[in-house]
Amino acid sequence: MISERMEKQMDFIVTIDALKDIYRQSITIANKRNENDAEHSWHLAVMAMLLSEYAEEPDIDVFKVIKMVLIHDLVEIYAGDTYCYDEKANEDKEEREQEAADRLFNMLPEDQAKGMLALWREFEEMETKEAAFAATLDRFQPLLLNYNTDGHTWQRPGIVSAKVLKRTEIAKKKVPQLYEYIERLIQRSIERGILKP
Amino acid sequence: MISERMEKQMDFIVTIDALKDIYRQSITIANKRNENDAEHSWHLAVMAMLLSEYAEEPDIDVFKVIKMVLIHDLVEIYAGDTYCYDEKANEDKEEREQEAADRLFNMLPEDQAKGMLALWREFEEMETKEAAFAATLDRFQPLLLNYNTDGHTWQRPGIVSAKVLKRTEIAKKKVPQLYEYIERLIQRSIERGILKP
Repeated sequence: MISERMEKQMDFIVTIDALKDIYRQSITIANKRNENDAEHSWHLAVMAMLLSEYAEEPDIDVFKVIKMVLIHDLVEIYAGDTYCYDEKANEDKEEREQEAADRLFNMLPEDQAKGMLALWREFEEMETKEAAFAATLDRFQPLLLNYNTDGHTWQRPGIVSAKVLKRTEIAKKKVPQLYEYIERLIQRSIERGILKP
Repeated sequence: MISERMEKQMDFIVTIDALKDIYRQSITIANKRNENDAEHSWHLAVMAMLLSEYAEEPDIDVFKVIKMVLIHDLVEIYAGDTYCYDEKANEDKEEREQEAADRLFNMLPEDQAKGMLALWREFEEMETKEAAFAATLDRFQPLLLNYNTDGHTWQRPGIVSAKVLKRTEIAKKKVPQLYEYIERLIQRSIERGILKP
């Protein structure tokens, strides 16, 4: 007999397959096609494995960071991807995503639903050291892709270096060595003419 | 000054973006296009978060399982994806993948290269409880995709239920409740006519 608990878990696992078809603004380096949320989440998780030594606060719980980045975009299965520089779409983003989180995570057995909701909420609030580190990676990774794809999303109207730098401001306090790397990357992008100063 | 250590880490992070363009045999449920290794690795990591309670051996280190599944396919960036039922390609798979692992992971600072190589080797050997659990997920996930995409890869010549069941044999001992689920899924697939008995 398969337990009701396992049925719920499997339904969730099948449902989240949809994350593979939620496309982002960034493009992949080799094939220059839009990256999706599942790939993005995977990339952040590996980055968390490698870069946690740069977190300013000591004893960061890397396991928690990884769990956060693995699930942080799942709400987009129902709420869609909201482009970070789209001001209009960002107005009701929070409400749409909270509804999506309730709907999606409550497919799971209660204890796991609670755990997932708590992790997602913590990530969104960006207050704990793990959430700040996860948010830093989430903002840094598209920069790295842009730098390696001739500034793909930076070519849109209104995107200038100050705006890009502002979005990664959390790194300045929380992951200063990474912020130094970001500053250099932005400087070089301006020099290469792929980002407007 | 950006350290040489950080430069190495960033080069690695940029290089592994290529995993997003290594395609597998399975297709995604919504859009029915080939799944890639990055998405597959992400899916396994979330499954590890949810299903570790079914591991037969106690006190499984879920963090280690997740790290393993996140990096287990990276060698395919250089060695390519080897279809599990392709006997010829599997002959030199081990050698090709070992070379790829050495080349890829040694891009990292020595301590991290060693850590990654050890994780990958442990996964490949399938001996520890974490590696056995990770391998079980790796074999179960394509089944779940096949079941939800009318048995997509099962339609090829020579694929019969006994072959599919044999490939998931590791679950029988190591994750018996999951094996029960797999048996039911295969039984239903035969009944639905999407897998040859």
